[in-house]
Amino acid sequence: MVTGRRFGDGGDMRYSEHVKQDRLWDRLMDLAQIGATAKGGVNRQALTQEDGTARRMLADWALSRGFSIFQDEIGNLFVRRSGQDDTLPPVTTGSHLDTQPTGGRFDGAYGVMAGFEALEALEDAGALTKHPVEVVAWTNEEGARFPPSCMGSGVYTGRYSLEWAQAIRDPEGMSVGEALVSVMARTEDARPRDFGAPLAAYIEAHIEQGPVLVTEGETIGVVTSVQSQNLFEIEIFGEEAHAGTTPRANRSDAVLAAVEVIARLEKEALDDADAMRFTVGRFIAKPGAPNTVPSHVTFTIDLRHPENAEIERMSDLIGRLPATVAGARRCRAQVKRLSDSPVTPFTPEIVDLIDECRLALGLPGRRMPSGAGHDAMYIPPLAPTGMIFVPCVDGISHNEAEDALPEDLAAGARVLADCLAELAG
Amino acid sequence: MVTGRRFGDGGDMRYSEHVKQDRLWDRLMDLAQIGATAKGGVNRQALTQEDGTARRMLADWALSRGFSIFQDEIGNLFVRRSGQDDTLPPVTTGSHLDTQPTGGRFDGAYGVMAGFEALEALEDAGALTKHPVEVVAWTNEEGARFPPSCMGSGVYTGRYSLEWAQAIRDPEGMSVGEALVSVMARTEDARPRDFGAPLAAYIEAHIEQGPVLVTEGETIGVVTSVQSQNLFEIEIFGEEAHAGTTPRANRSDAVLAAVEVIARLEKEALDDADAMRFTVGRFIAKPGAPNTVPSHVTFTIDLRHPENAEIERMSDLIGRLPATVAGARRCRAQVKRLSDSPVTPFTPEIVDLIDECRLALGLPGRRMPSGAGHDAMYIPPLAPTGMIFVPCVDGISHNEAEDALPEDLAAGARVLADCLAELAG
Repeated sequence: MVTGRRFGDGGDMRYSEHVKQDRLWDRLMDLAQIGATAKGGVNRQALTQEDGTARRMLADWALSRGFSIFQDEIGNLFVRRSGQDDTLPPVTTGSHLDTQPTGGRFDGAYGVMAGFEALEALEDAGALTKHPVEVVAWTNEEGARFPPSCMGSGVYTGRYSLEWAQAIRDPEGMSVGEALVSVMARTEDARPRDFGAPLAAYIEAHIEQGPVLVTEGETIGVVTSVQSQNLFEIEIFGEEAHAGTTPRANRSDAVLAAVEVIARLEKEALDDADAMRFTVGRFIAKPGAPNTVPSHVTFTIDLRHPENAEIERMSDLIGRLPATVAGARRCRAQVKRLSDSPVTPFTPEIVDLIDECRLALGLPGRRMPSGAGHDAMYIPPLAPTGMIFVPCVDGISHNEAEDALPEDLAAGARVLADCLAELAG
Repeated sequence: MVTGRRFGDGGDMRYSEHVKQDRLWDRLMDLAQIGATAKGGVNRQALTQEDGTARRMLADWALSRGFSIFQDEIGNLFVRRSGQDDTLPPVTTGSHLDTQPTGGRFDGAYGVMAGFEALEALEDAGALTKHPVEVVAWTNEEGARFPPSCMGSGVYTGRYSLEWAQAIRDPEGMSVGEALVSVMARTEDARPRDFGAPLAAYIEAHIEQGPVLVTEGETIGVVTSVQSQNLFEIEIFGEEAHAGTTPRANRSDAVLAAVEVIARLEKEALDDADAMRFTVGRFIAKPGAPNTVPSHVTFTIDLRHPENAEIERMSDLIGRLPATVAGARRCRAQVKRLSDSPVTPFTPEIVDLIDECRLALGLPGRRMPSGAGHDAMYIPPLAPTGMIFVPCVDGISHNEAEDALPEDLAAGARVLADCLAELAG
């Protein structure tokens, strides 16, 4: 896949020179208007009207540059710049356009627009590549509205079935399948794309979402792997009762049972190395009336660690403890493991290529694992895969205050453009 | 207020003979259709369209019997059967038409319809009373959608200001003031009523919502007092962060702070006598995405006990502990006491009258405190006050399975009719 040719052989391959920092920044700011929040962030959750508007904007940009667009049945949207032989599998880059409910302007959007900037750079240079080069906007990477995360890439790569994903409902009861209909109609001019269509290679650019690069004063993170990440949904079933008249001995209080489960699991997750990531991001209590003993709680646990053994220890506890605690409190518990990704190493040849492109451009950087999950983690079974990180201000992400510097974002797009050109031949 | 005349003096005062069990039951079942749930309960939360429909139904029943209707600015709806001297303050009964989100058919609705049945019994008997006799449907007794509970009676009696109540918002952001406009328009034919207009006396009928009467095989609870009840709203403020990349040491996790607060307070509330009622009925975590460290939690504590001293001990802790726990976890806490009712004794003369009417009808019963709060607890500063309890099946309430026997409900209405007639002269 990766040829022996490297940058420095000849100036003609440095498509990175055609990357335009201002164009990339302006496109990112245009996108950030869609779902913009008062605090300067973005609320553009998957398969909302805002998500559809952002997808349509990307499609229009693509068509205006003469690129073609495709979408598959889970709504992954592909922008293609043709190669000399379009029967060859595409060299693909991309990320996602959906955000957290109180997300930032760069998480996901940067990877899509850095990829689009790379395509524009190739176009501006009149590059002739053997393989087509593509940018993909994967559907529902965040999993905020519809857990689990990385749904679009998961379905594309066969990790999840389309039917399973379509049946998932948001807290208001709308299903992915229902939400897809109106969002995909916005880009109905896209040609159909099959799930699992082969890729020649996949490289995703992303803000780091953590403090390493910014602390070390470096510009490019060459990502070697993604840590293990797991999502559990725990339900506790109790019994409604009057808060004023029902003695404790007669109660089946779902909130107090859930509180004990979480308090005990948090204690088990404490580690001196501070490597375990234990997060209860969603906690929904019903019926939710102040003077009724609550009968039902749903909460999630997002669990991550760089070592599979630690994940297995905690997963085992999460599987067992809720039933024990709930039982002692006259409640019932049910635990579902919604996602389960072991440590994902990226492809050594791609990691090397990214590092070489970075060095050729004279950019300071380092090899590092990813603390966050990304669509890229599902691609290795299908194609050689890697990721490029750029710094974000103060390491803050999943927050409306998320920020990044235009020059860092452009640097990442330059490394990406050179990698894609090299891979596309 | 209460004259020396008692039942047994002469048969002419036994208006209870005109109470019709089937009519009362049928009206209750008609009301239960409004907001009926699949599980046989009722979801008719305060100031919803369903609430408006129930109020209109009561108004139509009233007008069809020649009674007149009034409403005040918080939406309390009064049905009046005129007395010989309508300048005298009315003898009033009533309860509420709103329910819990997963409430039953009798909580509140019974008190309104038992009162209406008493008015109909007086009407059928052609009774001439000195005072007018009224049934009131107080607005928002449950406080499920808009805490605190007993809002309508609280505003009527001057405990809360109208402006304060109007500004309270439901979790979707709609205010009481906004919701009142459309609901009150349904009964715009009602004449205006001033807050705090004097009452000659107030008696509220209600299902017990607890297990005492049903366990003892008794029909009438003569309520002597309402236990102390208190509602707190606690907010924890943290900081959003990425669940995969943010080390524990850098997190301000509002859910884990709230969990520790609740777990520690629950431990403090444990008592051998099982007299403390500690309920966290609402717990809202935001932004609510599984892979974002949550930045904000709001939860409520409903706290009740028959002794004021125990309430003060716990209230003091609830005031202090959240800030301590949150501070140690890099979060901030804010505690609001939304309601605060000490033990409320009812008027001895009214309690005696109810007990005498019960005995005159040969009904088994007992004097007892109320475990639940009711609108009646705000009336004593305004008028002599009492309550009549009837059994509910298995003591279950605030639950769609809430049930009661037609003969018990009719028995309560008979006691009520005789008491009202006696008080109205």
